Order: sequence, then structure tokens, then C-alpha cells
Amino acid sequence: MDHMLQTLITENEKKIVLLVLDGVGGLPKDTDGKTELETANTPNLDKIARESETGMHLPIDFGITPGSAPGHLALFGYNPLSYPIGRGVVAAMGIGFPMKAGDVAVRLNFATQDSNGNITDRRAGRIPTETCAKLCEIISKVNIPGVEVFVQPVKDYRACVIFRGQGLSDHVADTDSQKTNVKPLDPVPTSEKGKKTAEIAKEFIKQACELLKDQHPANAVLMRGFAELPHIPSMKDQFKLNAAAIAVYPDYKGVSRIVGMDIIDGCANLSEQITALKGNWEKYTYFFIHHKYTDSKGEDGDFDAKVAEIEKVDKILPDILALKPDVLVVTGDHSTPAVMKSHSSHPIPFLIKTLNLRPDAAESFGERECAKGSWGIVKTTAIIQIALGYADKIMKFGA
Amino acid sequence: MDHMLQTLITENEKKIVLLVLDGVGGLPKDTDGKTELETANTPNLDKIARESETGMHLPIDFGITPGSAPGHLALFGYNPLSYPIGRGVVAAMGIGFPMKAGDVAVRLNFATQDSNGNITDRRAGRIPTETCAKLCEIISKVNIPGVEVFVQPVKDYRACVIFRGQGLSDHVADTDSQKTNVKPLDPVPTSEKGKKTAEIAKEFIKQACELLKDQHPANAVLMRGFAELPHIPSMKDQFKLNAAAIAVYPDYKGVSRIVGMDIIDGCANLSEQITALKGNWEKYTYFFIHHKYTDSKGEDGDFDAKVAEIEKVDKILPDILALKPDVLVVTGDHSTPAVMKSHSSHPIPFLIKTLNLRPDAAESFGERECAKGSWGIVKTTAIIQIALGYADKIMKFGA
Repeated sequence: MDHMLQTLITENEKKIVLLVLDGVGGLPKDTDGKTELETANTPNLDKIARESETGMHLPIDFGITPGSAPGHLALFGYNPLSYPIGRGVVAAMGIGFPMKAGDVAVRLNFATQDSNGNITDRRAGRIPTETCAKLCEIISKVNIPGVEVFVQPVKDYRACVIFRGQGLSDHVADTDSQKTNVKPLDPVPTSEKGKKTAEIAKEFIKQACELLKDQHPANAVLMRGFAELPHIPSMKDQFKLNAAAIAVYPDYKGVSRIVGMDIIDGCANLSEQITALKGNWEKYTYFFIHHKYTDSKGEDGDFDAKVAEIEKVDKILPDILALKPDVLVVTGDHSTPAVMKSHSSHPIPFLIKTLNLRPDAAESFGERECAKGSWGIVKTTAIIQIALGYADKIMKFGA
Repeated sequence: MDHMLQTLITENEKKIVLLVLDGVGGLPKDTDGKTELETANTPNLDKIARESETGMHLPIDFGITPGSAPGHLALFGYNPLSYPIGRGVVAAMGIGFPMKAGDVAVRLNFATQDSNGNITDRRAGRIPTETCAKLCEIISKVNIPGVEVFVQPVKDYRACVIFRGQGLSDHVADTDSQKTNVKPLDPVPTSEKGKKTAEIAKEFIKQACELLKDQHPANAVLMRGFAELPHIPSMKDQFKLNAAAIAVYPDYKGVSRIVGMDIIDGCANLSEQITALKGNWEKYTYFFIHHKYTDSKGEDGDFDAKVAEIEKVDKILPDILALKPDVLVVTGDHSTPAVMKSHSSHPIPFLIKTLNLRPDAAESFGERECAKGSWGIVKTTAIIQIALGYADKIMKFGA
């Protein structure tokens, strides 16, 4: 958001709800057919769309397929190009590790090395996750003065290391050469900035290999994807919002945490998410409610199952409306068409419901209807501005 | 394209075809009437539009009438404001001269001067083109150490000079004062950068006038529009595309050449262009097919003839589709409404056909139908991004 405009933001008690159906944007099964959203029986969403302003949005840019983290950052009002989230951070967020600004996260593989120090198996015989967890405990004993080191299991032979301390940087090259029968690479700095972190990584690897020496086949570690958590201003600082995330999956709690949201933990499904929303209604001015399975079913290529997930979300809309949010936004973070079994670059439909608005040409909630909507195609970061405006949280510009 | 996003571009074998009907955007003959596109009988384009995503595009900005060179640069994915193409370069491209990055091209008029060196006729009695060509040969004998000099006839008394060498610049002022009975101006540098080129131009004029001293009325030269060929990254470097231009007119081969396309020469009409497309299908991943006469007839103010040119292009669409391009874009580089007899600032309709898409509200290919399209109005440079995305040539941003 433009700095001059940001100074116009003012706090009030009005409540904004952002409901995200992950990967909701879809495609017709065949050229003449309907998309997942157009197929789903969604009486609530359709009625709301008729009473809303609608449009399509693009999280990054034309032709760019968004990952989930940048897709959500954009919905939260942050330009994803200004706040790139590297792979190490994604790994840490994926396991729900509460990163802090300045932390550097790195992906770690347990690997096998021979007596000459050559890597003979980059995956340590694909050890199971339980073994991985034990090994992570072992190498958590690494002791580097002035740095906190967290080692967390991810899955199978994969783990994640987080370094916390002053002056860290992600300007460090991978140690995994992606080859076997060669020694691992040194964690060399890729710029002057990365020098300190490279030394820390080197010391970490040295101590870890010493601690692992009797743990064959997992007697070595490889590191890649050094990634700093960008210093992202909180939604409180940026938008004067008291924001809460009501998500089931750790990844989405992770991306919410890095923009300073409170995490309402303990929800396992939509019904519990609605209970959490009701229970916390008075405490916050912004609620992010996340439903993962529309994306999962899209990734699976299961058109009908994605339709069913959309229909599940449709059923909770009356409960949300009963709370009378001042602004309700329903949308996705990207498209995951079942026919493509992957994220795609297609724009995503959205609706904005509030008291004072102009209902537009959209007759239901779907790609082609919202493409007729009054907002046209906007950059995703526009959505929070529209919502803030409609919630009277932005003062007039000029007299 | 944003630098960070450019790093996501990846090469694959998928093929993108850009079919440009030059100046295709039009206007109704009268307020209630139909535009040229809406009048034309285009069963193929209309069917494709129904199976495509559509919209309108603006090459430069709102209200700005694009020249053909910037219009095409924008379609090729280059912001025309970042790569201004000066008048000398346009003249050189217009005659098909193969400019290289760093060359400086200048428009040249043959003129008449009296014994005092005063210009008495800025057009040398409007000598015919054949005479111009002979005079160009004569002054091609100019010899300046360290610089290659090319002198090429354009039309009537107009020619074009291209200087090639190290450290040249277009920071040089015109020598044509636009007045008669005064001496020509000196080619003065307009900044420190232009000093060397100004001296070269001065030496060129001195030698040229000496060589022309017996060629009255064409015994002098005037220079204007010094223009450097901007260092434009090639489509290979910028977008990892192996691009080929299939154009009849030299201007369009010229603008294709400066973005590093291969030029498929020898085509005189649409049928030969289709043959060239088929013959080169395996060699490239991006094809630019250009049809000039929609623009020419628009410039002539001949509404019906422009309609007929659109219908000619419609007939080749099945041949293009038979090759199964992964992405087909059909559009124009600007509008040339016959009722205006000139380029105009009106947005231009476009369609994008690919495998995974959402057909939208456009029922045919025309201005008002595409204005209902799902893409709304986009900057022209968005089109290649959308095409690259749909051709799986851009990796996902973030995880």
C-alpha cells in the first residue's frame, strides 16, 4: 500500500472477515462445461454474490502461478514481490515453527557418508520420520555461542534447521551438491552479508556430523534453501487491524503468524472454525478463515471432491453472516483446477459483501460470473484496501 | 516484466503463435453501426473467440496513440516507454536495414545550397527516388576512420544514414533548421555523450557536400532525428523463446529483428506466410505472423476494404489451428479506424486460445464483444505473460 495512503488508515471496531477457499479457482472439465465452482450447489454463496460486489484478482502478476504463501500474503495486503518467502521458511512454516523476523531457516537432509567423507546416499536410506525426529533431538545438542539453533523433523529423512541470532542472512549457498560419491559442498557465503551465517552453518555441520557419527546410515547432513524470514510489518502496524487466523493447517497458521496475526489454535474442521470465530468475535477486527481441502482435491485432480469441498464451505456461510461482519470477503489464494492437478495462473473470483455497495452483474459465485463483476481484474492487494475502505477504516484523502 | 518474475521463466517446447492484424481496432461508421471487425464475416475468428479468453489491451497508456513499432514491442513483451525507438531508427527499420544495438541512425534530406552555403531548398526540388538512390551511392564513399557508414535511400529526397562503431550516441542535435536562406546548423552534441558522434556527423556532412558539389540541385544534406538502437534484450534472453517473424513488410521484420527474432524471408502474402509457418513449425517456440493491409486500408479510410482484409485473415485461421499451437493470440498492434484514417488511442481486442481456459462472455471477435471478455483492459505487455503462463513457461512463484 502506498505510504501516503497508509497514513489515512484509522482504527475502528468494524469487523472484516476473509474466508479463503484454498485454490478455489478452477476450469471446466471440458470446453463447454462448468468449473468446480460453477458445478457446486452453493445456494448461500450464490445469493451472497448477487448481493455483493464481485471481480477477479491476480496475486502476483499476469501469467504467474502463485504459491500458497505469496497468495495469502497478497490477500493480507502485502505485495509478494516485496516479501519473498524462501524455501527454508516455507519448510519451517509447514511444520508450524514460530519463526521470528531475522531468523534463517534451512532445509536439512539426513544423508550417508563414507569414511572419506563422500556422500553415498543423499537420503540416508529414506529413514522413517520417527528416526528423523530422534536424530533431530541428537543434533539439537549443537552448541554455537550467540546463536539459538532449532532442529525440527519434517518427514522421512527431511528436517529443518532454524538459526536465531543477530546479523544473520540467507546469503549462503547450498551444501547439497545433488550428487553422490563426492564430498558435500561448504556453506559458502554468496555475498559479504552471508559471511557470519556461513560460518555458523559450517560449525553446525561439523558438530552435527560428530554427534551423528554412530548413527549410520544417517551420519551426515546436507543443507539447502537458506531463507531469511523477511521483516514484514504486522497487520496491526500496517493496517491497524487486530487480526486472528482460524486455520487448520500449520502452513497457513505460519503465514498468518509472520504478519503478526493471533493464531486461534485447536480447530480441526470448519465447524470448529465457526465455533472459534464466534468465541473470538469480540476480540478482533479482522478474521482470516482458511479451508484447505478445495486445494488438496484440486491437486488430486478430483473434480467432484473439490466440488464437495466447496459445498461444505457454502453451508457455513449463514453462520458467518449471523455474526453480521461489516465486510465479508470470499475468495481463494490462487486457482487449482482439478483438470490441471496443480496451481495455475488463472485469476481468482472474489466477492465483497458490505452494507453500502452496488450489486453487479454476477448472478452466482463462479469464475465466469465474477469475471462480469464490477471490479474487473484487480491485483490481489487491492482487496484489503477495498475492505478497509468499506469498513470506514481509511480516512478521506484531501478535503 | 519484473526482474524477480523473469527468473521464473523456463524453456519448453510448447509453441505460442501471435497473429497480428495491423491496426485492426476500428470504429463504427456511424454511431449505431458496426466496426470493421463487427462488420466482417469472420466465422473462424468468432468460433475461436467463443472458445477463448478475451479482452482489450492498451500498448502504451490511456489516451496514447501507438505507432506500429511501440505497438509491436509491447506485444512482444517490452514496455515501449523503456525502449523508445527514435525517428532515425524508424526510418532505418522502414527500409529493412538490419540495425545492430549501438548503431545510430539519422534521417537525411538531400537539399540545395547556394554559393554562400545557404539552404535554398530543403528538399532539393523533390528529386525522384531513383536519383536519391544514385546520390546515396555517391555519398557512401564518405570515409571516416573507425566508423562504418551506411547511406540508404528512403523515398524522393529522403534517405537514411546509419553510423556503426564504438561509443556512438544519439545525443546530437538536428542540422536542419527547418528554414531556407540560412546555413544548415552544425550537428552539436546535446550532452557530453554525443561529442564523438557529433564530430563524426560533421565530418560526414563535410565529405558528403564535397562529393555532391556537382549534383545541383542535390548539393547538400540535412540531418535530423539522430536515434540510437536501444539495447533491447532478445526474446531468447528475456523470455527463453526461440522466436520467428513471418512478415511481408520490412518495418515489421525490422522491429522483430531488434528483439532478436529470426526473420523468415520471402513471403509476399498470407498464403506464403502460412507455408512458412508450416515449414518452420519444428524450429521455433514463438511465431509472429503479421498482416499489414488492415492498417493500410484503415489509413486510406476505406472501411469496406479493411473489412475485406479482416475476412482474408479469417480464412487462414484453420491452417494455423491445424498445427495445434499450445497458445494462440489474435490481436492488433493498435487501432486504425477507417473513419479516422489514422492510428487512434482506442484499446484493441484480443483473444487467447489454449487448452486450459475459461471461455468468457465474448460471442464473437470484435471490439464490443471482447470488451465483455474476462481480461478486461490490460496493458499490452501482459499478453505475453499470460501466454507464457498458459504455455507452462513460467515456474510457480513461492511455495
